[in-house]
Amino acid sequence: MSEPLTLHHDRLFPPDPTTRDIARRLYAEVADLPIVSPHGHVPPQWIADDVPFRDPTSLLITPDHYVTRLLHASGVSLRDLGVGRDPLDEKDARAAFRILCEHWDVYAGTPMRFWMESQFVDIFGVTQRPSAENADAVYDTIAEWIAKPTSRPRALLDAFDIEFIATTDDPCDDLHFHEQLANDPSFTRRVAPTFRPDPYLEPFAGGWNERVDRLGEVSGEDVGSYDGFIRALENRRAYFKAHGAVSTDHSHADLGTQPLEPAEAARIYAEAREGRASEADCTALRRHLMFEMIRMATEDGLTLTLHPAVFRNHHTASFERYGADVGGDIPMSLEVTRALQPALARFGTAENLNLVVFTIDETVYSRELAPLAGFYPSVYVGVPWWFIDAPDAIMRFKKAVTETAGFSRLSGFIDDTRAFCSIPARHDMSRRLDCAHLAELVAQHRLPEDEAAAIARGLVADSPRKVFKL
Amino acid sequence: MSEPLTLHHDRLFPPDPTTRDIARRLYAEVADLPIVSPHGHVPPQWIADDVPFRDPTSLLITPDHYVTRLLHASGVSLRDLGVGRDPLDEKDARAAFRILCEHWDVYAGTPMRFWMESQFVDIFGVTQRPSAENADAVYDTIAEWIAKPTSRPRALLDAFDIEFIATTDDPCDDLHFHEQLANDPSFTRRVAPTFRPDPYLEPFAGGWNERVDRLGEVSGEDVGSYDGFIRALENRRAYFKAHGAVSTDHSHADLGTQPLEPAEAARIYAEAREGRASEADCTALRRHLMFEMIRMATEDGLTLTLHPAVFRNHHTASFERYGADVGGDIPMSLEVTRALQPALARFGTAENLNLVVFTIDETVYSRELAPLAGFYPSVYVGVPWWFIDAPDAIMRFKKAVTETAGFSRLSGFIDDTRAFCSIPARHDMSRRLDCAHLAELVAQHRLPEDEAAAIARGLVADSPRKVFKL
Amino acid sequence: MSEPLTLHHDRLFPPDPTTRDIARRLYAEVADLPIVSPHGHVPPQWIADDVPFRDPTSLLITPDHYVTRLLHASGVSLRDLGVGRDPLDEKDARAAFRILCEHWDVYAGTPMRFWMESQFVDIFGVTQRPSAENADAVYDTIAEWIAKPTSRPRALLDAFDIEFIATTDDPCDDLHFHEQLANDPSFTRRVAPTFRPDPYLEPFAGGWNERVDRLGEVSGEDVGSYDGFIRALENRRAYFKAHGAVSTDHSHADLGTQPLEPAEAARIYAEAREGRASEADCTALRRHLMFEMIRMATEDGLTLTLHPAVFRNHHTASFERYGADVGGDIPMSLEVTRALQPALARFGTAENLNLVVFTIDETVYSRELAPLAGFYPSVYVGVPWWFIDAPDAIMRFKKAVTETAGFSRLSGFIDDTRAFCSIPARHDMSRRLDCAHLAELVAQHRLPEDEAAAIARGLVADSPRKVFKL
Repeated sequence: MSEPLTLHHDRLFPPDPTTRDIARRLYAEVADLPIVSPHGHVPPQWIADDVPFRDPTSLLITPDHYVTRLLHASGVSLRDLGVGRDPLDEKDARAAFRILCEHWDVYAGTPMRFWMESQFVDIFGVTQRPSAENADAVYDTIAEWIAKPTSRPRALLDAFDIEFIATTDDPCDDLHFHEQLANDPSFTRRVAPTFRPDPYLEPFAGGWNERVDRLGEVSGEDVGSYDGFIRALENRRAYFKAHGAVSTDHSHADLGTQPLEPAEAARIYAEAREGRASEADCTALRRHLMFEMIRMATEDGLTLTLHPAVFRNHHTASFERYGADVGGDIPMSLEVTRALQPALARFGTAENLNLVVFTIDETVYSRELAPLAGFYPSVYVGVPWWFIDAPDAIMRFKKAVTETAGFSRLSGFIDDTRAFCSIPARHDMSRRLDCAHLAELVAQHRLPEDEAAAIARGLVADSPRKVFKL
Repeated sequence: MSEPLTLHHDRLFPPDPTTRDIARRLYAEVADLPIVSPHGHVPPQWIADDVPFRDPTSLLITPDHYVTRLLHASGVSLRDLGVGRDPLDEKDARAAFRILCEHWDVYAGTPMRFWMESQFVDIFGVTQRPSAENADAVYDTIAEWIAKPTSRPRALLDAFDIEFIATTDDPCDDLHFHEQLANDPSFTRRVAPTFRPDPYLEPFAGGWNERVDRLGEVSGEDVGSYDGFIRALENRRAYFKAHGAVSTDHSHADLGTQPLEPAEAARIYAEAREGRASEADCTALRRHLMFEMIRMATEDGLTLTLHPAVFRNHHTASFERYGADVGGDIPMSLEVTRALQPALARFGTAENLNLVVFTIDETVYSRELAPLAGFYPSVYVGVPWWFIDAPDAIMRFKKAVTETAGFSRLSGFIDDTRAFCSIPARHDMSRRLDCAHLAELVAQHRLPEDEAAAIARGLVADSPRKVFKL
Repeated sequence: MSEPLTLHHDRLFPPDPTTRDIARRLYAEVADLPIVSPHGHVPPQWIADDVPFRDPTSLLITPDHYVTRLLHASGVSLRDLGVGRDPLDEKDARAAFRILCEHWDVYAGTPMRFWMESQFVDIFGVTQRPSAENADAVYDTIAEWIAKPTSRPRALLDAFDIEFIATTDDPCDDLHFHEQLANDPSFTRRVAPTFRPDPYLEPFAGGWNERVDRLGEVSGEDVGSYDGFIRALENRRAYFKAHGAVSTDHSHADLGTQPLEPAEAARIYAEAREGRASEADCTALRRHLMFEMIRMATEDGLTLTLHPAVFRNHHTASFERYGADVGGDIPMSLEVTRALQPALARFGTAENLNLVVFTIDETVYSRELAPLAGFYPSVYVGVPWWFIDAPDAIMRFKKAVTETAGFSRLSGFIDDTRAFCSIPARHDMSRRLDCAHLAELVAQHRLPEDEAAAIARGLVADSPRKVFKL
């Protein structure tokens, strides 16, 4: 016999009755506001071509490394979940879905459980807790939902009330899906590309030279020289901006922004193009190029989002077999104060600059990020990212940051996901936790309730629009 | 229409009714105890000459970088707040005060809000929440309060019941304000200087040679040699002690205490005096001199307070335009275990030594500071400092430290402020949080309430007296 | 007049009534389950020879550095507590016990207080809060308890319902106490040795050569060569496994696992045997040997427990006077992601490997350990260790880890103690906090109560059996 699957209307609220009542009142103010999603990983083609989802497994499991990694830790092969393979046929897709249901318990207490439960109940209409016994029935329920015309991406953008959504794109991308959407008078939502130049800024990584060659081609600049390379980057930023981009996104091993003398940058660039630059020189050039990215942002006004300090593809064998982004990226400690100092000393009060720092290293919240964002008008503290995008971690973040930087220096929520149907649940979690945190402040008489309500609304409606200049 | 501004008698207490009742009972034991303030930045002249405050802006905004930095982050020029300028005339002072009132929301949830609200209501008699509309009226209310004879520093020392207050002073200071107070039979409170030698211990910093010359003059020692320099420092410590000092205060980039061989110290000193010592050698000498400071403390018994690991003047342009201490100092990560080992291995059980370590890097509380203070009789854990001098951070500190080191190894509260009228609010916040934390322990049956009450009283009345030997 | 000493049945539970009721119901499911203790420091002889305890001081104070260190911080000489001496006579034992009672207040809020109170009330039958006045009476009560035949180790194993207990042993130990127990048909509990090779893997530490010589003797392998040394380690692991060992335990300054080329390892080994290897080379060899230990574990299936990053014998004078393990070990910061990468890239998905990482640096929980354990099937997150084995720290650990890794990737509780009579209290604290944490999740509607109950039972009954392959 299966247990029922339901969502409690008070979930994530503090249990103390006084505090909970305040949280409920605050939540009523924000629960139905439209979704603004300024950073994420939904493929633009899904929306441009209104691509129907294929099956429950490819919708919910295979591409979502949050989900697959805990199954992998439980001894499941990533292959059995469809990772690194052609789309699974129905038999294999059902088998993979059964694995998820059999391991429902390993997600207890995690945000993956919250997101899945929210989708299962609110979107797909599942009424029983997934288990080995009912795996096929749950699969069928979701498959039936997928088959409906109202379950296609464009209809869902409306149903979810997603007002703005950003994708993440290669600098050489021609952005034709974005163009297609912009030219479609029947499409009234806004989908923006994001300029993500990481591999072009890391000369020591494999394939850099070929990427730079391609950058030269698409930009029409001569990348034979360092100056041409810089112009090529500027050219593509302008192209992205012309196609609606509001931000650039960056994820390197550290946040270094130490600029080089132009001649030194040109020397390393030339050596890197010849494949003979040292790793140390390549790192120095990458930090210099981040300084340049921030300089460009002061000129073109694109917001920068920084997602540093992850050890990519930690398990070499999984990377070789399945590729990147399969759950094998592991965070490292982060240093912000010294790393960003050169760029902030130069550009920290530039009117046009918005710089959002995300971290998985929670130690920098109270020690570095909040003090920086509480002084520099250009610095915003990004909401918890990736592994710490979870209720208790989010509460720790709020308590660590707002005492120093207040609420006006926060980035607003970003969902950072490619799991399309989880977007409402992710924003709902964030809003519930905004209200839980504010309710605690009100209950401790640290904030009047009318101010708390204004802040709750501002975090959802105003912060992302201000930070990403929407 | 303005909102009322009031203070709830239960503010900062946990909302759970059982726990709150316990907190109220504990707070009743400590709310009215006198204030002991063993470390702060109030200018001694204010008290010696009983200098009246000038206007609301110069009292509450201009000199307080806690307040100005969040306005700066909001796009306000520090200049418009009076920073780095001659005192503002009334028109400009009112304009600056209006900026504060217009930005009242950016302080929501911060300790600055708590301190300001406490002062506005309890001291100045403001009854409306500050806003653009009522900025002039609030200014007037505070200006009227300032004009009263009972609003001058000496009267306030009595009104606030500040029993002991320490200032922070240059080793070459002749301490004549302190002498003036000591010789004034009408003055019954105690104001002590604090020996703050940082710039004398950093040979690589600009102006070091001139400072050392001056140290030679005021001490009468020949600072041509390293030995004379050490004697000069000992001489000034003795001078300070004779003028009532109870502690020395130190803030360097790290906590290093590695001693050098005397000949090596003398070599670096000589080269530094000639302006040709390397940065690495200067750092080594500074760490050696910190070892020497601790050695001297075992002899003269002055308590050491350590405030390490801040990147000073992070925004170079602000420093050049406005000077130091304008909100541009940003914390860095801290290492304690290895850094203090040489000094603690030598002096850690010396009877005369009290060493208080403050940090803005919360990670060292449970990992390093509490374990050190739980073994060495000379080591005390300083209360949260600067950016983390805030309710949630203080609760994190208490929970991180007391489980390992108990309550007897805490420094007691220090307010570390130059904002004179905020002193009672800062101590009140600390007392409320002491009681909130203890009430949680009692409510979880981890501590009997009679012991909790004794601890609450001890933290306020006994700890600072023991740690600072008052 | 003394205060009563009692234990509240709700201790450590959250005060909110709804949450507390849930915690009570969950606790009822686990309170009486048998104790599994897969890592600790009880001497095997105590059990093999059923050695009676001597007196209250040698039972509760002298060998327990958790207890002695806070007295030392309070100014008490370790000598007066019996540290580093022959057993105290009754007069000195009573004097030491009186010191503890006089300083009862310094333990307020610490886990030492919880453990002592639990033992005093539940085991010894003490009814009054210890104090200077009743120190002798409390001593007498405990001494009377010690004198009973039911107070000897074997009877206590039954009374405490300790099903399995591991000791910690030198690789050269012949394990005859374990053999004696295995051959005793009257003994029905299980006592397992643990292979602890630290000093054999650190060639730079004093006495290494002699230890390796001895390893050669007991293993019968020729340790003249690196290959023979490796065989000797493998030989002793096999010996331990044949004598019931289920794990190996490792505590070095860092977690490095970088392997060397065999020839390079052999070169350093040879130089180390000749006493002329550099410190850097010795560190490199130690990291290589940790890689080898993990390789061996994939072959013999012994679980590895890692306890890294402690500065041993920080106070040199105490070490010289009293020896190791007297409270002078201080934690340092830890890095996991990069340090374990070489070993995990090679062995991270090996079916036979279980690797449990403990830490006193809480920052790695959400940043590194939970992400690692949430991907690698071989990695488990160890429960809080040593200084952070305390209620608030344990709650922080649970909240930092379970959101990323769920509950299935936790090690289960280990008590890690030589304080025999504190074992039930330590496990009880853990169970209470399991329930407190789960009750919070249920009260926030993040987890159904039936799942929470299953998890609570699993953490006590299943996790240690799975992780340690019992």
